Amino acid sequence: MNSELKSFIDVHKGEIDQRLVQLFETIECPSKLKEAMLYSINAGGKRIRPLLMLAAIQSYRNINETDYDAVCAVEMVHTYSLIHDDLPAMDDDDYRRGKLTNHKVYGEAFAVLSGDALLTKAFETLSNLSNVNDLNKIKLIQEFAKDSGAEGMVGGQAADLEGEGKDLSLEELEYIHHHKTGALLNFSIVAGGILGGAPSDDIQQLRIFSQELGLVFQIKDDILDVEGNEVEMGKATGADQNKNKSTYPRLLTLEGAKEKLVYHADIAKSSLQTTSASSTLLENFVDYVMKRLN
Amino acid sequence: MNSELKSFIDVHKGEIDQRLVQLFETIECPSKLKEAMLYSINAGGKRIRPLLMLAAIQSYRNINETDYDAVCAVEMVHTYSLIHDDLPAMDDDDYRRGKLTNHKVYGEAFAVLSGDALLTKAFETLSNLSNVNDLNKIKLIQEFAKDSGAEGMVGGQAADLEGEGKDLSLEELEYIHHHKTGALLNFSIVAGGILGGAPSDDIQQLRIFSQELGLVFQIKDDILDVEGNEVEMGKATGADQNKNKSTYPRLLTLEGAKEKLVYHADIAKSSLQTTSASSTLLENFVDYVMKRLN
Repeated sequence: MNSELKSFIDVHKGEIDQRLVQLFETIECPSKLKEAMLYSINAGGKRIRPLLMLAAIQSYRNINETDYDAVCAVEMVHTYSLIHDDLPAMDDDDYRRGKLTNHKVYGEAFAVLSGDALLTKAFETLSNLSNVNDLNKIKLIQEFAKDSGAEGMVGGQAADLEGEGKDLSLEELEYIHHHKTGALLNFSIVAGGILGGAPSDDIQQLRIFSQELGLVFQIKDDILDVEGNEVEMGKATGADQNKNKSTYPRLLTLEGAKEKLVYHADIAKSSLQTTSASSTLLENFVDYVMKRLN
Repeated sequence: MNSELKSFIDVHKGEIDQRLVQLFETIECPSKLKEAMLYSINAGGKRIRPLLMLAAIQSYRNINETDYDAVCAVEMVHTYSLIHDDLPAMDDDDYRRGKLTNHKVYGEAFAVLSGDALLTKAFETLSNLSNVNDLNKIKLIQEFAKDSGAEGMVGGQAADLEGEGKDLSLEELEYIHHHKTGALLNFSIVAGGILGGAPSDDIQQLRIFSQELGLVFQIKDDILDVEGNEVEMGKATGADQNKNKSTYPRLLTLEGAKEKLVYHADIAKSSLQTTSASSTLLENFVDYVMKRLN
């Protein structure tokens, strides 16, 4: 990993982890529900979405204390989506990041409820941001709801379930990824722009950046599912192949998928060139996502 | 039912039903997800929460067209909570209001996802309200998130699951109901006050009103579970008794529960007397909830 990015992550990841826990420890609710939420919040995520949001903010201004609350909201929604996706009725996964999934520890009912509570807490967190004016809070909430709901992430998961066992076209596969993975990356980047004070032309470019980054992310995931090391991945590899899922390597060959990875990474980086952002950090993120081992 | 209340419901219920469908028909998402959401939205609810919110608004000013969007948000969250509560891992119900439950028609995965999407759409709807200023939108979203999340409705459902098969005290039973049922009624009434322009002293009284109304609602539910007619209820009666659930009739005897019903109805009505609200309609609602047959 590039050293500038590494030091950025070193500085901010611990702060995100800590703030996330604080936001849940103060909740007054039945103890098993709180435990179930904290279990998945603390399950060792890489915090890529919050870090990306911070990187987008820092492309426009210095990061301040209150930014951490905003970036925690996107991690809450990401975490809820993993809990619900892992349920037996959905992807039926027993392990995630090398740990038992939420429903294996707390049971299915509490996995459903803790996901519901995390999603709701994310909106509460955005509505409570200090040092953000009401207009920008509403902009964030509108963008967030669109990106995480039926027209975004949930719609992508629905399309993914519908597509299982079918031969999908590249277009159908990209619809799924733009929604299932891309929508929340889009929120992270666009919200960072809004919080950072980016002009509206820049916001449009940030949307293009995040869309391309989302594809880089997913293509790399598919490649790692073929090539990755189970220990580094923390989960069984070859899972998508075994489930007969449509993937980029399956549609384009492994070599073709790798070419497409580079292609989208290049568009992502060049999309920032016309903006007023100090974009080195975001460009480093593209390289990191493209080259990661898990 | 009182004739003033009947004509209020006749005028507004159809508008609510229609607006709810409009809000979902325009969503662009996989068709099965949209169908699953609309199935439960159209499953014949009495729309008590939206009607209560409209009644609270009308206690302060005339209802206008844009109020319908706000009241639809609370029905979306109520609907999502029913879909998730009916899941096999939760209450495991096959029928609701005389129709098959969501997961019996669309499968568990889509029941989880359509609930998630409904919850998200509720926040989107509040953030998009026209004719409401940003400050009031944020107030509504803060209240809504608190009342529907871990510290409200979801927390109540968690406590309810934890309490199953246990002998609960009256205090524990009231915790469950204040959260599981009461929190969303609280939002309906308080949001109506905010939208209607109620002064802050009135908002405090409206909170007391809604808390007492929530108890009336729940005690009546428990009584109907013992005395109700299966055809009128649209679901099996005696279900709580069979599951060995703690209920008011079980804790207080049927006669004691009926006395408690009247007691809380009286406090609810008197709580409005010090407000500037034209409160007849809300008082009629209390009588309706207390006397309903299903």
